Amino acid sequence: MSNPEQELIQTYFAPLAGDGAAGLMDDAATWVPAEGMETVLSTDTLVAGVHFIGDEPADLIARKALRVNFSDLVAKGAAPCGYLLNLGLSTEQDHEWLKSFSYGLAEDQAEFGCKLLGGDTVSTPGPLVLSVTAIGEVPAGKVVRRGTAKVGDVLYVTGTIGDSAIGLEVLKERCKTVDDSYLIDRYRLPRPRIECLGLIREFASAAMDVSDGLIGDLEQLVAASGVGAKVNCDLVPFSEAVKSLSVLDDQVIIRALTGGDDYEILFSVPYKRADAFEAACSNEVHHIGEIVDGNQVAVCNTAGEQIEFPSKSWSHFS
Amino acid sequence: MSNPEQELIQTYFAPLAGDGAAGLMDDAATWVPAEGMETVLSTDTLVAGVHFIGDEPADLIARKALRVNFSDLVAKGAAPCGYLLNLGLSTEQDHEWLKSFSYGLAEDQAEFGCKLLGGDTVSTPGPLVLSVTAIGEVPAGKVVRRGTAKVGDVLYVTGTIGDSAIGLEVLKERCKTVDDSYLIDRYRLPRPRIECLGLIREFASAAMDVSDGLIGDLEQLVAASGVGAKVNCDLVPFSEAVKSLSVLDDQVIIRALTGGDDYEILFSVPYKRADAFEAACSNEVHHIGEIVDGNQVAVCNTAGEQIEFPSKSWSHFS
Repeated sequence: MSNPEQELIQTYFAPLAGDGAAGLMDDAATWVPAEGMETVLSTDTLVAGVHFIGDEPADLIARKALRVNFSDLVAKGAAPCGYLLNLGLSTEQDHEWLKSFSYGLAEDQAEFGCKLLGGDTVSTPGPLVLSVTAIGEVPAGKVVRRGTAKVGDVLYVTGTIGDSAIGLEVLKERCKTVDDSYLIDRYRLPRPRIECLGLIREFASAAMDVSDGLIGDLEQLVAASGVGAKVNCDLVPFSEAVKSLSVLDDQVIIRALTGGDDYEILFSVPYKRADAFEAACSNEVHHIGEIVDGNQVAVCNTAGEQIEFPSKSWSHFS
Repeated sequence: MSNPEQELIQTYFAPLAGDGAAGLMDDAATWVPAEGMETVLSTDTLVAGVHFIGDEPADLIARKALRVNFSDLVAKGAAPCGYLLNLGLSTEQDHEWLKSFSYGLAEDQAEFGCKLLGGDTVSTPGPLVLSVTAIGEVPAGKVVRRGTAKVGDVLYVTGTIGDSAIGLEVLKERCKTVDDSYLIDRYRLPRPRIECLGLIREFASAAMDVSDGLIGDLEQLVAASGVGAKVNCDLVPFSEAVKSLSVLDDQVIIRALTGGDDYEILFSVPYKRADAFEAACSNEVHHIGEIVDGNQVAVCNTAGEQIEFPSKSWSHFS
């Protein structure tokens, strides 16, 4: 075991390995879903300075990388089971960092019932970069897609929207709220809505997680479905901390609705099933609008005034 | 479709998407192996300036990223079927680059019978970085591991060793051979030994691809198997181009045996099956040694002189 790359893998990552990973001493993993289940794969890349600030505790970076992927899986009705990890380490990540990073992975493996199946660890002259490929399972043929919303379906979102975007503003000391630490925590640590998995599987006609901003993501959902949508922004759920902003004007609402990093689930339910759905779900789910004819997303308030958005989501390539 | 990231994906990558990818308009892919087959997953990250020079034609970078993963799958007895692509683009990659890159992916999809199933495209202030996660299938329960070589097994390697490492020396104008372009091509474009898949599945007791250097990789194989190995370096196959080096001394042999990027398959066959194996295989496979008791790799020449290696493989973290 003279190879330093292998030593690093065996020290920090082999203890996290699950069945099929061959103790991370092989070039590939095997994966077999449970009987009657189908494999769902999701992958996201995070770059220091782009997707996170870079000076966060390493365990939080690890957990965020896992959770943004688990959030994708849950929105597809899939339960997270395992993951692959591609780690591009800069000279700034030392053994202390790796110890904390692998601790974060272990914490979330326990919380989400997942195991590490494989990966690749390399050095880079650029910033820290990491990709997680999450492996989940869904009852065969029952994956919930983005492109299957129908006119008349009712639109819902889980949790509260904008906490993370406003949390980043708080971190940058651009504003203050009654609960700054709650918002910063929401920015730093996504909470995949694993508790909604059963509801999504049973009721959702289409779903996606809100990662790039509610309105921009809804535009993706309606584009994939070939429909339009109407949202009442007065129905969009805001946390007490966001509501406490001294000026809750259109600019704040726009920031909340387009800022991204929410990791809530946006989904549609057929109109005829909406009553049954609302009876089955907790008050953590909010009705925000409807799927309509057309190909646009229209956002109004209860008074019927239309809200205009200069940019509807965050993009790498604007 | 106002989101530039989505436009980029739809322009360059959606035409490459296979079943289960939902046209790359969703957050996740579904994957179902053929009846009786099991899923095998392999992932590798490539960083410009580390894993390739960076000024290569973009189509070659794409093909190399796929092939280093397909090589891993083939060494496990798995046929490549699909892949996920994580692309971290620097400011240097423009539309021309993406056009060439996606052309390279399309070429290799056709050559290897694979489809793109999903991925993530982000921007990075660092160098171009890309990860491919290759999805393959193997008859259920029949994956060929690294850690299953037994004392007495015969060691083989496909093709020729050292072409790529010497090719890089040629590129850096440190040496000349009778066929420089052959060696440079071997460095730039790995050739996964897909034609050996049937033989690996039928005969190999353990296998891995040679990516970090023959001797260092063999050390990984014996460490995983809890055995030792003896290699006769006079039996290691060299190409005519490598043999043509004006001084084929120990230094060149050491470079060839430890340089890496060969993407040949190193494997063991039970002694009792070696005759049947050799009868079944072409002369592209070479007997180079034996699995023995112990935990060391000993390299000798036919005269019995031991060869010492200052470093046995390439490492990111020496």
